[in-house]
Amino acid sequence: MLVYLNGEFLPEREARVPVEDRGFIFGDGVYEVTRSVDGRLFEEPTHWRRLQRSLGAIEIDISGALDREAVREISERLLRENGLTGGHAIVYLQITRGAAPRTHWFPPAGTPPTVFLSAQRLEIPRELRERGADAITHPDQRWARCDLKTVNLLPNVLVKQRAHAAGVFEAILLRDGVVTEGTSSNVFGVLGGELRTAPLSNYILPGVTRGVVLELARERGLPVSEQPITLEELPRLDEVFLTGTTTDVQPLVTVDGRPVGTGRVGPIARALQEALYRRMAE
Amino acid sequence: MLVYLNGEFLPEREARVPVEDRGFIFGDGVYEVTRSVDGRLFEEPTHWRRLQRSLGAIEIDISGALDREAVREISERLLRENGLTGGHAIVYLQITRGAAPRTHWFPPAGTPPTVFLSAQRLEIPRELRERGADAITHPDQRWARCDLKTVNLLPNVLVKQRAHAAGVFEAILLRDGVVTEGTSSNVFGVLGGELRTAPLSNYILPGVTRGVVLELARERGLPVSEQPITLEELPRLDEVFLTGTTTDVQPLVTVDGRPVGTGRVGPIARALQEALYRRMAE
Repeated sequence: MLVYLNGEFLPEREARVPVEDRGFIFGDGVYEVTRSVDGRLFEEPTHWRRLQRSLGAIEIDISGALDREAVREISERLLRENGLTGGHAIVYLQITRGAAPRTHWFPPAGTPPTVFLSAQRLEIPRELRERGADAITHPDQRWARCDLKTVNLLPNVLVKQRAHAAGVFEAILLRDGVVTEGTSSNVFGVLGGELRTAPLSNYILPGVTRGVVLELARERGLPVSEQPITLEELPRLDEVFLTGTTTDVQPLVTVDGRPVGTGRVGPIARALQEALYRRMAE
Repeated sequence: MLVYLNGEFLPEREARVPVEDRGFIFGDGVYEVTRSVDGRLFEEPTHWRRLQRSLGAIEIDISGALDREAVREISERLLRENGLTGGHAIVYLQITRGAAPRTHWFPPAGTPPTVFLSAQRLEIPRELRERGADAITHPDQRWARCDLKTVNLLPNVLVKQRAHAAGVFEAILLRDGVVTEGTSSNVFGVLGGELRTAPLSNYILPGVTRGVVLELARERGLPVSEQPITLEELPRLDEVFLTGTTTDVQPLVTVDGRPVGTGRVGPIARALQEALYRRMAE
């Protein structure tokens, strides 16, 4: 597997960062995961804009290191050289504030950011997408800037592990009595024929697939409301599904062991899942 | 500078971790910073207990990798071989969940944790300790497990940078109308002759120096109350000081540009600072 690190293409096993890297020491960095279908980057402009927003918010300046065209070229080369131009794949991009002697404040101006990209095949778990998955709920204990796609992911890791240990696909996070999102996905529900998902705020990631699914729903004339799902509404939802770059549209058939709606994948999730795959194939 | 990484002592510039290290990808690790005085580790048992607590809470198992005796031996060798057995120094220890293909959930059992230690000289800024420092206040936007000493430190980094850019020493964090702690220190105040600091909870780090200072205060018969300082009380405090392994007892003479008490270092901060240095020298 060939990866990219700070200007070089090299085998993954040789790709190493100094222990002083602020990614390692502080989780001081941001990332993006972009879907590729037959070698084409899906929603690349949206991922690039979100990356810019994350970098801007935590004040990492990559202007001297790489631009959008460079990221696209590196991504495409990684897909090509790793034999990933057919079918589904993902490109992982991480940028940290670079390597420097440890200080909580930023390192001296001019410290080059660390730039890492890799690509790998994505096998869509068709059977899981078809029959639906299970989830648990968990308190959302993360910080107040979940809208930034940073690598400070330990809270997500700990809760995803809870889900994994419970044998379920995802954990749905609850803060102040409402659903925010999953540990690595956004959450949608259907209640009385209306599609619901948490509005954009500092408490959820502006998911790229979330945005596409909202667009697809509106195109289909589905009533859509970006209004949070409350803890009380959760057991009354007719459908629940997750969205994400590697999650696609993943229907849920149980939450906390209780069936969602009929306990089978609902028509709205199914329709949006199909529409998403068609959009990806365009 | 010689450092320790996964069983090897090597020059720092050669110490590198794979890009797959979960420290780099998720901030999935914990750390400790231990003070050394003339080659002796200060409060080593307390740091070891806190490390065990952090590791336990995020479920990193180091039982196969190293024990307390090994950490002590590595620390002492780093101090020796780096010429740090005279005067003040710090030993940095970081343990992550190891290197493995990226999944939010934990890697397969048996994935070895990454263990990194380094040591460096600590120059006590005597003049700053003497005349006092300045601080600003800032909302505490961190997650709900600030009691764990994890490397998910981006929120701390961002706020410490605000302080640094404002030309001050530290930012005092406020959550729900009360002082929690600093970005890399605990906060104490004196009000009406009583020493006050936030009680241990999930919102503050159980600082080793915080514990020592409370003990020193009680030994001196000072009235001590582990009760949070409110936003309203903050401007009325007679003294404010910070504590930490590299911060010692650092008096503050202004907060948000307003003088604390008389605007000069107060007698309680001074007495506790002296007592701490005496304790370190024992």
